[in-house]
Amino acid sequence: MTATSNDPLVIAGTAYQSRLLVGTGKYQDFAQTRQAIDASGAQIVTVAIRRTNIGQNANEPSLLEHLPAEQFTLLPNTAGCYNADDAVRTLRLARELLDGHKLVKLEVLGDAHTLFPNMPETLAAAKTLVADGFHVMVYCTDDPVQCRMLEDIGCVAVMPLASLIGSGMGILNPWNLRLIIDQARVPVLVDAGVGTASDAAIAMELGCDGVLMNTAIAGATHPVLMASAMNKAVQAGREAYLAGRVPRKTYAAAPSSPTSGLISPATSK
Amino acid sequence: MTATSNDPLVIAGTAYQSRLLVGTGKYQDFAQTRQAIDASGAQIVTVAIRRTNIGQNANEPSLLEHLPAEQFTLLPNTAGCYNADDAVRTLRLARELLDGHKLVKLEVLGDAHTLFPNMPETLAAAKTLVADGFHVMVYCTDDPVQCRMLEDIGCVAVMPLASLIGSGMGILNPWNLRLIIDQARVPVLVDAGVGTASDAAIAMELGCDGVLMNTAIAGATHPVLMASAMNKAVQAGREAYLAGRVPRKTYAAAPSSPTSGLISPATSK
Amino acid sequence: MTATSNDPLVIAGTAYQSRLLVGTGKYQDFAQTRQAIDASGAQIVTVAIRRTNIGQNANEPSLLEHLPAEQFTLLPNTAGCYNADDAVRTLRLARELLDGHKLVKLEVLGDAHTLFPNMPETLAAAKTLVADGFHVMVYCTDDPVQCRMLEDIGCVAVMPLASLIGSGMGILNPWNLRLIIDQARVPVLVDAGVGTASDAAIAMELGCDGVLMNTAIAGATHPVLMASAMNKAVQAGREAYLAGRVPRKTYAAAPSSPTSGLISPATSK
Amino acid sequence: MTATSNDPLVIAGTAYQSRLLVGTGKYQDFAQTRQAIDASGAQIVTVAIRRTNIGQNANEPSLLEHLPAEQFTLLPNTAGCYNADDAVRTLRLARELLDGHKLVKLEVLGDAHTLFPNMPETLAAAKTLVADGFHVMVYCTDDPVQCRMLEDIGCVAVMPLASLIGSGMGILNPWNLRLIIDQARVPVLVDAGVGTASDAAIAMELGCDGVLMNTAIAGATHPVLMASAMNKAVQAGREAYLAGRVPRKTYAAAPSSPTSGLISPATSK
Repeated sequence: MTATSNDPLVIAGTAYQSRLLVGTGKYQDFAQTRQAIDASGAQIVTVAIRRTNIGQNANEPSLLEHLPAEQFTLLPNTAGCYNADDAVRTLRLARELLDGHKLVKLEVLGDAHTLFPNMPETLAAAKTLVADGFHVMVYCTDDPVQCRMLEDIGCVAVMPLASLIGSGMGILNPWNLRLIIDQARVPVLVDAGVGTASDAAIAMELGCDGVLMNTAIAGATHPVLMASAMNKAVQAGREAYLAGRVPRKTYAAAPSSPTSGLISPATSK
Repeated sequence: MTATSNDPLVIAGTAYQSRLLVGTGKYQDFAQTRQAIDASGAQIVTVAIRRTNIGQNANEPSLLEHLPAEQFTLLPNTAGCYNADDAVRTLRLARELLDGHKLVKLEVLGDAHTLFPNMPETLAAAKTLVADGFHVMVYCTDDPVQCRMLEDIGCVAVMPLASLIGSGMGILNPWNLRLIIDQARVPVLVDAGVGTASDAAIAMELGCDGVLMNTAIAGATHPVLMASAMNKAVQAGREAYLAGRVPRKTYAAAPSSPTSGLISPATSK
Repeated sequence: MTATSNDPLVIAGTAYQSRLLVGTGKYQDFAQTRQAIDASGAQIVTVAIRRTNIGQNANEPSLLEHLPAEQFTLLPNTAGCYNADDAVRTLRLARELLDGHKLVKLEVLGDAHTLFPNMPETLAAAKTLVADGFHVMVYCTDDPVQCRMLEDIGCVAVMPLASLIGSGMGILNPWNLRLIIDQARVPVLVDAGVGTASDAAIAMELGCDGVLMNTAIAGATHPVLMASAMNKAVQAGREAYLAGRVPRKTYAAAPSSPTSGLISPATSK
Repeated sequence: MTATSNDPLVIAGTAYQSRLLVGTGKYQDFAQTRQAIDASGAQIVTVAIRRTNIGQNANEPSLLEHLPAEQFTLLPNTAGCYNADDAVRTLRLARELLDGHKLVKLEVLGDAHTLFPNMPETLAAAKTLVADGFHVMVYCTDDPVQCRMLEDIGCVAVMPLASLIGSGMGILNPWNLRLIIDQARVPVLVDAGVGTASDAAIAMELGCDGVLMNTAIAGATHPVLMASAMNKAVQAGREAYLAGRVPRKTYAAAPSSPTSGLISPATSK
């Protein structure tokens, strides 16, 4: 195996070459947003409908002018929603604004302090949205049982947090992530908590299908350069996953030394 | 800052575009060696003089036929030497075989079980070699005091282990590495222990100037693909270091929450 | 502060001197069970109603003969239940067998492979049991939002897993645990995943009010000695928490070095 | 195995019941020093000869009045020495002041900023002191090769740092520590870096023979309570080591799941 040219990420039947999904918030202006997105190589770009103008305010500049639909797949999200009703209403509005666009990212938060997911409301909203014909990518906790429930409801991707939104703490519990990946039949993307390039690489090496981030890029000292770093890190992690890493050995000269408990190198599927 | 086009690694006065140095051992054959080196983008390639034919055995195939000197900087190393005398003798032989080539990698091992460095012998060999006109890059422990001694002796780069040679355990003690980086006036490269792409990215994010590896690539299931992953990971880590990552926060919404003790984000120099 | 003689764990209005709660499964026989429990110093002892005879089978030996009610507080649990109905039924049976005993441990599992909690069923069962007059201690994920929901329902203690039941992996996500502890108004006990003494000490140092374990003791090579170790470890961790540890500093001589992101030393309440 | 009553720490032929060694610096006064030492249960108490009066200044209060020789084994140390000559001179002075006392702790520091050991000077001083009849316990880096050299010189115990003196960072590299423990024929004690009770327990669980600390106790908000915590933590860690912990398993229900690279549970010797 010497290339990954034919290794797309498939979500809801559509193939994407990039496995890095990015947000659009927290940049200086739309121009910097676009520059960073270009450097990231992302094809799917998520937009907080409650915070970003994509046509709701007809007299203000719209993000859509900077992210042409021919070139990017917009992913409307429900950032700022704390219950199922608000989330469903927000995504129905997005669908109207975007001419029937189906692919959305659901997030229902538990509180404004931690921005941790509210899972009962998330499950309820997912049911409604799937029944309503949406293709739901869903932000959630790293709970393998509830991830399976979301998959059973019909979500097209599950997106467990690596750590709190905006925290930059990286992947706090790789073991839970592996439980989720090992059982999933839909793509698993890490969403929230990535802080730097190696965090994104680790997510991919664990077997994640993709990574979604915003703050790690937009909040860096040099956002466009960090976007380039993340672009390469996601590819590096994916290739390392497919390449089959060497096993960890506490002693190089004693390959059979008894070791246990560390997360095992993932086997590419 | 939007590009890293002018960010060379300078060792002993020579500038290199690639910050990934690779070994030549453990491959199936010289053809695979070359393919992997090409995918890695490495410009400096290290060769174990005691194990690889670069002309010592005139009738056998020589690695040099596959790594033309116009294209690659060869870095003879002393793998397999357990005392200063053997190491010095080995590098003098390499200098003869390579027409006065000065840039070398010194490693003196403590025992065949762990392959951990023998620091007293390493210090002694470094003194002799520097006095003899070599440009010495030196494999060593992650001991900041002895790294400074090696620098004071005149070594052109210090190369602390991340973990045992061939172990694939990654960077076991990033704090020691940071102590070394913070005080060094010569390049610091992580040598030994990298297992997968994220390990290389982490080394660069900590502020290392480069990474040297062999087993992680040659021992992977698909070595050429892993070489490509490492190439991207080193670039990603370097760019992330230069881009200035977001700070870690235990609570996103509470940026001033009292936290302490984790290794701090490095400031680019 | 020089003693912890007056530092009880209060659950549902009752004060306990020991903060270590233990299980009764996986021992050789009831005699060893009793020996280990004595060495642990535990006052609350949990019993899997579906697996242990406490009177359901009148002709078989009963655990109660070895754990007299005057000396120990029995904590019936629902190990082996995979939905709310089974869990509620099991605890009603226990209440009958134990003459109206109210203190119970609810656990509803997601699958037999991971033994991870099923949170929707756990929330449903908790509502029913609290309404039915039980004092519910509840095994759950380390999700701070759902822990708060369980507290709002009226549970008398929340017991997030440290890692999977029987895994011995220790505390995989101390940050989530701290979010839970920081907001809780009922005792927080770590349940499941403790492997050795230091794991129990870490849980207490984070600010947990207690620790519940079974496999770590019963599965050790020498269970009674491990029970003694856990007894001391829980006390050590509690005292260290109350004593106020020194801050972590990357450089001893540079107390103000910029560090961030590591879990902060807890302040005793 | 149900007790550890006959499990002494033997150093230079003398048996000690306590495996916790403590320092005497940084306390409010000698009275608090004594209280904390009593709570710690320590029998060996180390004294910085360059900072503490044990008779050098005849007109000032002496620590010896508070630590009677019948009750405690004094361990003079060379804190503040930066070369072999100073260290040797300091310990010869201590021997005079203490009537021929042989047991000493050697430490030679690399710089005042990190307090990291200077290993070449440490090796030189150890040679001189052993030849001079001292029983040398030696503070050193966690380098297994140099630890073996110190043992070969004749040191009676090796004491690798867990992390920088006074840092409270705990054991940064447990793998190096295990390499040292696995090969050592003299006691291995962790010296420096312990921050809280669980750090001490972890050291003992790894198979260390003892732990030496000062700042973690003296610098705590409540030093006497922390001394009690450390006393229990060292016992807990030792008992857990002897009791044989359960293996770590990523899945409880899948004991043979492929895992690798984590430090393995130590086998008691």
